[in-house]
Amino acid sequence: QDPGVVQLRHQELLCINITYFFLNFSFFFIKCFIIKSKKPKTCSILFNRKFTQLPHLAGTEQNLRYAEQIKKEWMEFGLDSVEMVPYDVLLSYPNKSEPNYISIIDQLGNEVFNTSLAEPVPEGYENVSNIVPPYSAFSAKGQPEGDLVYVNYGRTEDFFQLQREMNINVTGKIVIVRYGKIFRGNKVKNAMLAGAKGIIMFSDPADYWAADVQPYPDGWNLPGGGAQRGNVLNLNGAGDPLTPGYPAKDYTYRFSLEDGVGLPKIPVHPIGFHDAVNLLKNMGGQIPPNNWKGALNVSYRIGPGFTDDFKSQKVRMNIHTDNQVTRIYNVIGRIRGALEPDRYVILGGHRDAWVFGGIDPMSGAAVVHETVRSAGKLLSKGWRPRRTIIFASWDAEEFGLVGSTEWAEDNTKLLQERAVAYINADSAIEGMYTLRVDCTPSLHTLVYDLTKQIASPEDGEEGVSLYESWHKRDNWTNDRDAPRISKLGSGSDFEAYFIRLGIAAGRARYTKNKKTERYSSYPVYHSVYETFEIVEKFYDPSFKRLQAVAQVRGGLIFLLADSQLLPLDVNQYADSLRKYAQSITQLAQKHPEEMKMYEVSFDSLFSAVENFTVAARDLHECLQTLDRADPLQVRIMNDQLMYLERAFIDPLGLPGRPFYRHVIFAPSSHNKYAGESFPGIYDALFDIQNSADPEKAWEEVKRQISIAAFTVHAAAMTLTPPA
Amino acid sequence: QDPGVVQLRHQELLCINITYFFLNFSFFFIKCFIIKSKKPKTCSILFNRKFTQLPHLAGTEQNLRYAEQIKKEWMEFGLDSVEMVPYDVLLSYPNKSEPNYISIIDQLGNEVFNTSLAEPVPEGYENVSNIVPPYSAFSAKGQPEGDLVYVNYGRTEDFFQLQREMNINVTGKIVIVRYGKIFRGNKVKNAMLAGAKGIIMFSDPADYWAADVQPYPDGWNLPGGGAQRGNVLNLNGAGDPLTPGYPAKDYTYRFSLEDGVGLPKIPVHPIGFHDAVNLLKNMGGQIPPNNWKGALNVSYRIGPGFTDDFKSQKVRMNIHTDNQVTRIYNVIGRIRGALEPDRYVILGGHRDAWVFGGIDPMSGAAVVHETVRSAGKLLSKGWRPRRTIIFASWDAEEFGLVGSTEWAEDNTKLLQERAVAYINADSAIEGMYTLRVDCTPSLHTLVYDLTKQIASPEDGEEGVSLYESWHKRDNWTNDRDAPRISKLGSGSDFEAYFIRLGIAAGRARYTKNKKTERYSSYPVYHSVYETFEIVEKFYDPSFKRLQAVAQVRGGLIFLLADSQLLPLDVNQYADSLRKYAQSITQLAQKHPEEMKMYEVSFDSLFSAVENFTVAARDLHECLQTLDRADPLQVRIMNDQLMYLERAFIDPLGLPGRPFYRHVIFAPSSHNKYAGESFPGIYDALFDIQNSADPEKAWEEVKRQISIAAFTVHAAAMTLTPPA
Repeated sequence: QDPGVVQLRHQELLCINITYFFLNFSFFFIKCFIIKSKKPKTCSILFNRKFTQLPHLAGTEQNLRYAEQIKKEWMEFGLDSVEMVPYDVLLSYPNKSEPNYISIIDQLGNEVFNTSLAEPVPEGYENVSNIVPPYSAFSAKGQPEGDLVYVNYGRTEDFFQLQREMNINVTGKIVIVRYGKIFRGNKVKNAMLAGAKGIIMFSDPADYWAADVQPYPDGWNLPGGGAQRGNVLNLNGAGDPLTPGYPAKDYTYRFSLEDGVGLPKIPVHPIGFHDAVNLLKNMGGQIPPNNWKGALNVSYRIGPGFTDDFKSQKVRMNIHTDNQVTRIYNVIGRIRGALEPDRYVILGGHRDAWVFGGIDPMSGAAVVHETVRSAGKLLSKGWRPRRTIIFASWDAEEFGLVGSTEWAEDNTKLLQERAVAYINADSAIEGMYTLRVDCTPSLHTLVYDLTKQIASPEDGEEGVSLYESWHKRDNWTNDRDAPRISKLGSGSDFEAYFIRLGIAAGRARYTKNKKTERYSSYPVYHSVYETFEIVEKFYDPSFKRLQAVAQVRGGLIFLLADSQLLPLDVNQYADSLRKYAQSITQLAQKHPEEMKMYEVSFDSLFSAVENFTVAARDLHECLQTLDRADPLQVRIMNDQLMYLERAFIDPLGLPGRPFYRHVIFAPSSHNKYAGESFPGIYDALFDIQNSADPEKAWEEVKRQISIAAFTVHAAAMTLTPPA
Repeated sequence: QDPGVVQLRHQELLCINITYFFLNFSFFFIKCFIIKSKKPKTCSILFNRKFTQLPHLAGTEQNLRYAEQIKKEWMEFGLDSVEMVPYDVLLSYPNKSEPNYISIIDQLGNEVFNTSLAEPVPEGYENVSNIVPPYSAFSAKGQPEGDLVYVNYGRTEDFFQLQREMNINVTGKIVIVRYGKIFRGNKVKNAMLAGAKGIIMFSDPADYWAADVQPYPDGWNLPGGGAQRGNVLNLNGAGDPLTPGYPAKDYTYRFSLEDGVGLPKIPVHPIGFHDAVNLLKNMGGQIPPNNWKGALNVSYRIGPGFTDDFKSQKVRMNIHTDNQVTRIYNVIGRIRGALEPDRYVILGGHRDAWVFGGIDPMSGAAVVHETVRSAGKLLSKGWRPRRTIIFASWDAEEFGLVGSTEWAEDNTKLLQERAVAYINADSAIEGMYTLRVDCTPSLHTLVYDLTKQIASPEDGEEGVSLYESWHKRDNWTNDRDAPRISKLGSGSDFEAYFIRLGIAAGRARYTKNKKTERYSSYPVYHSVYETFEIVEKFYDPSFKRLQAVAQVRGGLIFLLADSQLLPLDVNQYADSLRKYAQSITQLAQKHPEEMKMYEVSFDSLFSAVENFTVAARDLHECLQTLDRADPLQVRIMNDQLMYLERAFIDPLGLPGRPFYRHVIFAPSSHNKYAGESFPGIYDALFDIQNSADPEKAWEEVKRQISIAAFTVHAAAMTLTPPA
């Protein structure tokens, strides 16, 4: 017997061979899906052209055509059913007759410099129409004029520094910030809170330029004329801004635009660094703080308001972007479970792209497509998984995770009772270094076990497992000797499933070396330069990295759907809870006097974690002696495992964020991309030293500790024997 | 074979005999529980004295002693486990050193008449201590003085009539209203909204006096010195006012009293009609409208503010009631299910009483106790139900359903995943006429089937079933020929289970003839005259009515816990939804012009009801062909049946009422006792003709229709085949 098999906990021996078979299928097809016409017999030129050669922005004709094609192929692959599921949601497009741009204006208001209206189109795509120029989706319309103020990354701490240390007020001014570090929507929110009347975001080479790498097409750096598209919403999980909490169907009530969720009230626009230099170089004032210096900082000084030798740089934003209720289409395919059709394992990723989507999302959509193809092959050989598998090609992810959230809202009752797990399939690659996994703690063990069965895709690592390769490159730094797995944040389609509904979730992709590579995401992110060729030439010429990611995502789905006992490790959740509790306690202990004065204690939380730990251990002991021949006993145990994640959901939601309901995890209030543990407590503690009413602020800390302690206690109760 | 057996749908033939056995046990024991020392060999004098002879208000030593005794006996009866579950919740008691009363004051402020400080104690109870005098629990403290204004029942429509038709402003005045028609907390809320600085409630003989019946002890009417205790909260399902949403444990964060949920901000006090006559007889002004005249109206005229010959009646309220965080105790007993221990069927009723609790709640607590005893006997003979049965003796129901709500909060994760049904066991009798059942639509069929198996308790109806007897006395008036079953409102412990958590729920009791008996509840309700003797002498001398109620409640629990397939009828839910949709549409159609102007349509709701109807019918067809030998298939079907009620829960709650989450049913916003269907739409339509912003108001109607339509659609989806 293969010794690796023994390491795979909680799964049926019978399944292993099928797993291997399944994973091998993924390998075979992943490559021919994404490369263009290399293997015309298997994957037609036509097929590949359709998915990577034309822009397919959400809400466009082209993206509908892709949806129809995917539906058709999934049916051909042999799924039991495939349906198109439309919603009518608020999207946002530039006005074709009035382009968006930023001007430097002189004292008479004349536009003496205008930013570019489009990115230079890469070779081979010159004749493509419908390339949307760089814009900030959902920007307010308007033509505000004002002095420009540079606020670094536009983070909360950057605005604090500006306001508190430099004593600069941006009210009525236009701010310019560099991209990176945090989600752009948070930058916009911060600018609005600070009173700015517009915000410009640029890609600074300090953040989007790798050393010794050429700009595209000679390398994978962002050209100076490139810029990052993206939505600038603050939805906090609401999905379609006009139908928060409910699916955007024909009969659904829609809020007016004024009442829509998360829409910015000021104009927003993104530019590349060639344009940014022109805006920044003439700014007067003091040199910015050392920690604010990007690569552009050599050529300009920053202001205004720093010193008396302040020289104003006055700009005008010209933004005409329109919000429009637009039809979008998810494609939903199913394989009915043989024994438990009412248990759902979901693999979902988006299809809509800002332009070609060479990396985002088609490198991930390929994984979904090939997993469907592989599953279809298995079905044709008589296989059928124990549980139902649902495959989703989401629309309008780029406009606020809208397609996936609307479907979650539409199916909320079913998902709450029946969903086992959600695996996300956005971009499969954002770097060339190693695996990156973010997932719920109960999936850690499965991810480790699975990656030990998968080969490393790196050259020179023949015979080395993906686990070993990953472990070597990104070891957990502190308390254990294992590859790092991070908390889920947000920024992709798992959000509604994990944070709102409490469904165990995970994501996996290939990533950069975060110790040496400073840029956020990857340099050409959301630019026109995200082509098929950038993957083929630079990111993954052998397509082995994509194959490895496909094996991880597909393997997770397969094992979750077909193992008799769910491969979820609740002991791991206990460990994580303890770590998070220690971490939040340390944060509070930065205020020892207040902790004493207001009688703030974390004892109840640690007591709850202890309860949880004992209950988790006991449950895993019960699993050892479970009578697996008794279908009801197996089902009852699986229900306990499945519903654990649900137990962390508080229907009341987090303060001010009603759709973020997971008490243990939420996207950071200061950066949607990052996951925060015990977010209620964290937010209550945030900047508490500057609270206007410290007593009230500490009362809120105590209330949040109480909610966290209760939730962990209650989750522990779900792990104890059910009667 | 007994032909009645055939009529019991969805249940196992095997169970029937046990059912009968079980129900017979209930009969045998129900009597000896509640009567005093008639059968000393079976039920000791000691036992009965403990439960009916001493006041056992929530939070008192005596009520703890009863809890301990119940725990002890439930263990002796043979339950698998019994535990005391304490919470520390906000209760409210009169100040022992400063009694509450109302004074008539003269122009110098002298108190020229004071209301009585206590009710005359009934014969046989003269030496009992700790009888709490009539008071309004959670009243604000204070000694407001002001002119008295009579506002009939204090309903919303009464205040509207006063303000709009009579043009009387009660701001800064003290209002006096009669008890009845609506929950007293709603009267207090209305008085606060109208600006009153205090409110007095009295029991008018028009509402609490049956013709040709003597006052207690010679009959069951309320003596003139009797008064109705009761809480005056507006909790809207929050449970303990200081810990809304979370169980009131030692570590739980507590709001300050100022931030507590639903606490009245003005003094409130109840009086009997002997005292009321003195307050009312000297009031000047006009004769009140005809529809406001109670029995007291012959002797007084009403004012002030009606005409010029207004004569002021000035009163002072002296209220010193204290709010106190106090420990309460639920008793929770369990029988572990043999096959599905993780499916819970709950029988719960409260134990705490305002004084002796002869009717409320001990006539119901007796049913629970005897059901436990019967179940214990069955267990000792080797029986064990398929599912887990939970028995609950709730504390502090009288203080806002607090014990049951805290336990629901404590166990919310378990209940959400596992609870099949909740049957309530408050007072088993409130009249001598016939059965009264309020339950969720999916239980209608089970109630009908069950009552056909139970004998009528009425003299002269030997051989007649409870169903026939009930049918004859209270036939459904409109669309079908069956005994009336009503919607669940609130006012007892099922609230959190049904309205917040979406657990199928029902209640049954013996009631009055509502066509001929005008009084709300029963005349001595919440007075010191609710003794054991009033039941024994007047309400149920043979104890057959209580037996019948025990058979209904116990029978429901038994059948829900032991039937292989859950005896829930989702077709009946479809019928009810259609009826409710028609009813709410009719209400809206009173405004045909606005419906047209604002494009209000109920089409989406009817379309959803149609979907639901088809899905329900198909599901019941699937049930016919289900392979009952396949445990997983049975479980999957039962899960669909069980989770249907859950599908009506919207985590966002109703507007302004976050703990009322059931989209189909909620307690009326104007009377907590009454159930409202499609409450979101109903409340949006309420008094809409007087809306300050009609467009906004009709937009809200449309939004609520959309939510209702979505919820019914989504519930229908849960009934379709799961993959």
